[in-house]
Amino acid sequence: MRSSTMNVSQQERFNKTSMAEKYNQSSLARYLDGEFWEIKYSLREEISKGEVFRKSSYGLPLDQNRDLTVERLEYILTRPLMRRHIKDQVKEKQPGFIAKSMDITELICSADMATGVKLGVVCGLFGGAVTNLGSPEQKDSWYLPVTDLEFTGMFAMTERSHGSNVRGILTEARYEPSTQEFIIHTPCDDAQKMYIGNAMKGNYASVFAQLIINGESHGPHCFIVPIRDQSGVMNPGVTAIDMKHKEGLHGVDNGILIFDNVRIPRKNLLSKFGCVSTDGVYSSPIQSKGKRFNAMLAALTPTRLGLSVQAMASMKLGLIIAVRYSHSRRQFGPKDQEEVKIIEHQTQYLRLMPHLAAALALTFTTRFAGCMMDDALCKGEVLQNNSSLQALVAGLKAYSTWENLACLQECRECTGGMGFMMENRIPALKCDSDVFVTFEGDNVVMLQVVVKELMTQYTRQLGNSVGGGLIKTWASSMSDSFRTSFLGFNVDTVGDLSFLLKALSYRERVLQRTLAARLYAKVQKNKEEFFHAWNSCLHHVTGLALAHIHRVTLEQFALAVKKCPAEEDHTLLTKFCLLHGTSLVYQERAWYLEHHYLTPTTSRQIRTQWVELCRSVKDVALKVVSDFNVPSCCIQAPIAGVANPQAEWAFHPLPQYPIAASKL
Amino acid sequence: MRSSTMNVSQQERFNKTSMAEKYNQSSLARYLDGEFWEIKYSLREEISKGEVFRKSSYGLPLDQNRDLTVERLEYILTRPLMRRHIKDQVKEKQPGFIAKSMDITELICSADMATGVKLGVVCGLFGGAVTNLGSPEQKDSWYLPVTDLEFTGMFAMTERSHGSNVRGILTEARYEPSTQEFIIHTPCDDAQKMYIGNAMKGNYASVFAQLIINGESHGPHCFIVPIRDQSGVMNPGVTAIDMKHKEGLHGVDNGILIFDNVRIPRKNLLSKFGCVSTDGVYSSPIQSKGKRFNAMLAALTPTRLGLSVQAMASMKLGLIIAVRYSHSRRQFGPKDQEEVKIIEHQTQYLRLMPHLAAALALTFTTRFAGCMMDDALCKGEVLQNNSSLQALVAGLKAYSTWENLACLQECRECTGGMGFMMENRIPALKCDSDVFVTFEGDNVVMLQVVVKELMTQYTRQLGNSVGGGLIKTWASSMSDSFRTSFLGFNVDTVGDLSFLLKALSYRERVLQRTLAARLYAKVQKNKEEFFHAWNSCLHHVTGLALAHIHRVTLEQFALAVKKCPAEEDHTLLTKFCLLHGTSLVYQERAWYLEHHYLTPTTSRQIRTQWVELCRSVKDVALKVVSDFNVPSCCIQAPIAGVANPQAEWAFHPLPQYPIAASKL
Repeated sequence: MRSSTMNVSQQERFNKTSMAEKYNQSSLARYLDGEFWEIKYSLREEISKGEVFRKSSYGLPLDQNRDLTVERLEYILTRPLMRRHIKDQVKEKQPGFIAKSMDITELICSADMATGVKLGVVCGLFGGAVTNLGSPEQKDSWYLPVTDLEFTGMFAMTERSHGSNVRGILTEARYEPSTQEFIIHTPCDDAQKMYIGNAMKGNYASVFAQLIINGESHGPHCFIVPIRDQSGVMNPGVTAIDMKHKEGLHGVDNGILIFDNVRIPRKNLLSKFGCVSTDGVYSSPIQSKGKRFNAMLAALTPTRLGLSVQAMASMKLGLIIAVRYSHSRRQFGPKDQEEVKIIEHQTQYLRLMPHLAAALALTFTTRFAGCMMDDALCKGEVLQNNSSLQALVAGLKAYSTWENLACLQECRECTGGMGFMMENRIPALKCDSDVFVTFEGDNVVMLQVVVKELMTQYTRQLGNSVGGGLIKTWASSMSDSFRTSFLGFNVDTVGDLSFLLKALSYRERVLQRTLAARLYAKVQKNKEEFFHAWNSCLHHVTGLALAHIHRVTLEQFALAVKKCPAEEDHTLLTKFCLLHGTSLVYQERAWYLEHHYLTPTTSRQIRTQWVELCRSVKDVALKVVSDFNVPSCCIQAPIAGVANPQAEWAFHPLPQYPIAASKL
Repeated sequence: MRSSTMNVSQQERFNKTSMAEKYNQSSLARYLDGEFWEIKYSLREEISKGEVFRKSSYGLPLDQNRDLTVERLEYILTRPLMRRHIKDQVKEKQPGFIAKSMDITELICSADMATGVKLGVVCGLFGGAVTNLGSPEQKDSWYLPVTDLEFTGMFAMTERSHGSNVRGILTEARYEPSTQEFIIHTPCDDAQKMYIGNAMKGNYASVFAQLIINGESHGPHCFIVPIRDQSGVMNPGVTAIDMKHKEGLHGVDNGILIFDNVRIPRKNLLSKFGCVSTDGVYSSPIQSKGKRFNAMLAALTPTRLGLSVQAMASMKLGLIIAVRYSHSRRQFGPKDQEEVKIIEHQTQYLRLMPHLAAALALTFTTRFAGCMMDDALCKGEVLQNNSSLQALVAGLKAYSTWENLACLQECRECTGGMGFMMENRIPALKCDSDVFVTFEGDNVVMLQVVVKELMTQYTRQLGNSVGGGLIKTWASSMSDSFRTSFLGFNVDTVGDLSFLLKALSYRERVLQRTLAARLYAKVQKNKEEFFHAWNSCLHHVTGLALAHIHRVTLEQFALAVKKCPAEEDHTLLTKFCLLHGTSLVYQERAWYLEHHYLTPTTSRQIRTQWVELCRSVKDVALKVVSDFNVPSCCIQAPIAGVANPQAEWAFHPLPQYPIAASKL
């Protein structure tokens, strides 16, 4: 039927139809794909066509592994849809730009995590720095050529002695009016830029350094520093040390950058939030050093959300593999009868189903965060000033990356020895995504960001600054909202979504109020130093941050269920949403018992409900993982029905849904 | 001072002194080393001297990695102390043999996990099969020559379709009287022997197969099958497929064995529990097939305990590295003051200290299990019939291997980006020891073994068989012991060890009684099939098994504290013992609240106590990890003060204990 007489739109429609035939086109699959499903379909097609994604990387030496990742990255960067997307990135206020970025991130990471991370470095971090902190000319010269593979960039913020605490970075950028140059310098070992991705391959680095003019520091700014030319010749004064072997992400070349009085022209200071005139006069649209640095950090916000999406992509892959294998592998059974499928073992479904529910919750919550970010950007807001968004993104980063590790660990264990073999993908996913919990903001630091943002949010309107006054305000505002939200319930309702939503919301509010009260007593009454007071409440702080993000994920899941158009999907998602809420309350039932929110009886009911919900979704789980719509070239695992001639011994045929009654 | 005029005992004393000077000789270090500390000192010396342990393996291609492991294994096998130990293994009833084996296991695994696992295959599994299932002549011909590196062996039990459920293995061994041979055959793909360690290098396999004589099956037996000769030429009919790349243990060659009518002489049936006369008459000292198979499985018991020790070795290494780095790395701090050491962050000590307490608990509990096993063996008991021991070993295997993974994950996260770098050892430990939770008995299966053994133990004296009668007996006996052990307490005592011990014991008993009642109702009253009834209680079963092992670890820790001779050590261990107990109760506080054993007030007290205990031991933790007495060639990590010229960027100097007051 493909014919030269088709016009462009016919051809496009034809392509889409053929894609839809190739991939899962159920109503649930479409709903899970979201608004930009067409981009996802195109990208699935590109990945499936790409020879470069068909090689396996786990047996390769480090150098070849990195080269393969570069090939993959170049393949992706030169796809027409990616070129268009990068052009949109340079423009401002592109509706849906973040949402589309997240969809692209998810798919590339499904194909190969190292490629996804490297793309994140080049487009999200380096590209994000240039597009968020640079002038229009700077964007055109230092980012757009990436689509023609003219060069790639890296993001040099972290230093040896300052990882989480980036404000304390030591690298210097002294301005020399006589030559109109900045001199980028690493004053000591502790100032070495460390863990820099693409450090052994990339051409330009966006370097964060303290801007010094006439001996006066103006705080951290971002500079474009040439590292090596296209043929690999190093820029004089720049040293790159290869950090070589890591737990995972072997395809990503991390290294150390050291600058020995490296001279760069004045125009290499990304000038949106601060620039220096030829004669060395500093100007900035933001007066406060702290606020200026915060605005610069906004460049990191989309990357942080990207990490949640990366973690989610990894969870989905792990679950596809573990759920399918659990529906085909058999072990143990009633005496003298056929052994049962391992999904029938109670422990097996209790270990996997809550993570499947969480993966769905993350699908909707990351989408919500993407929309929030797109809306803010289209309104021209500085993302760093949007406390709700910052709290959400920081909390999601911590929650999703931990949840991913927990999920993959269960997937690994639930697939036994097979799950330990590289062919079955799970080990690489674990090793690659392990670093997510500490990079781009350590999770424990992220949780503190959540709480600080929540505090800021509640007190901004009153004009308080962070500190004692803020805590006092927070304490009183919280006790207010606490009073109005304390809702009664009876034991019959623990199965209701509204009960679960109220329970999560109640926990968040109480933790907030009690934290404020504790901090107030320590700082205001006992005059403790703020850092020490805060530190002595850190267990409480992290608990509150997780309570906040738990509540949001359940709310967003519930909203997505409400909006789901197909009745059958609505029913299915409702069960998973209930399971997600039940899991979250079940995990924290000790707290609810301590606070008399659950009685011993209702607490046991929650457990029974949790077990029963897990059992009730174990079969339909096969449909859900299929509706994640991940191409088999991304799934790879022979135990999930994807044949691999190199590991015939691992092959297990794809179990089908609906499951034939006799096989149950 | 070393002189040719010294006599042997003087020389030995001198050697010991010089070793003691070289290693930590504090009273606590000695106490943690235990009865056979001299063996540990000698082995530390051998490992530190061994050039072969100085190379790093993480950058090597698979083949070179495996070759290095062989070199290391050969180095260990030829040490005089190892030769003596293997000779002891061939003799029966050697006092302290298991305890010494565990000490050796711990140290070899500290040096390199792959070498430890390979040693476990050759000596523990293959050697264990030959020495436990073979005749004296068989031991001499098929095991002793290992010390002269004449050959190595492997252990071929697991099959493609039967991993956890080993009773169902399909490999056949048909006896042919005319030739007096067994014909070992793989009848179908599902019967392929899988994940076999040393399959690509070893010479003989101890193969479990169904013994068939004249078409009649006598159940699984163990046969010695030649796989390849010393020069690597395969035995005709044997195929070995390389399984290649795994998440970890890259130095261990796992493979698949397929037998195509492989003929072996009659004498190759390990004959202790069953033999076949020349004319094909079967005889066995054990009549029941089931009991016979159980007796054969006893060969696995020491290996299973060995796994707990391996997991503990890995935990200790992770903790040494993470605790030291936490005492040297600084990040964040009070405004305008020096940043604080990261151990000062509340979350950091809350994440690490409970694992340090657990590592101590495991030190004493694995030692106790080793003594129990040595006692049983010296009395000539069949280990498989000792229910307390089997429950303890199975439970310890599950608890220690999960605890190790949780511990290493925290160590990885608490060391940030540094913990992701291979130089710092933690990633390899994680990847190598991940498989421990599913191999040699999947942990979920192990927990079921615990409960079945507990049931057997309580009902053996009454002569019941497993099934309904047993459950009924159990239910009634439990409710008895429950009544006599219900002890009152008041809120002032939650800090007492006796309170914690009682709480753990109470939980175990209640879970046992209620499980028995549930099973009784299902099986006896509702006539449910046993497998399904059991499966529907699996969450309960695994909870009980963990409650059992938790209780035992705290009891053994408490006993060890009691026996500790030095007062200072006694005080220190008491704190960690309290922390271990508090952590265990804190984890399960929801259950205690549900059962009114804790009130909301006491539950909160437990949390406060947990936080305070963690804080109080964070500094002395430096002494404890030093007293683990692991040679620096095993620790390796530059972030823990062990310089590595290949990764100077990772070096952090060793923090000293006691900590100078000004540095606090």
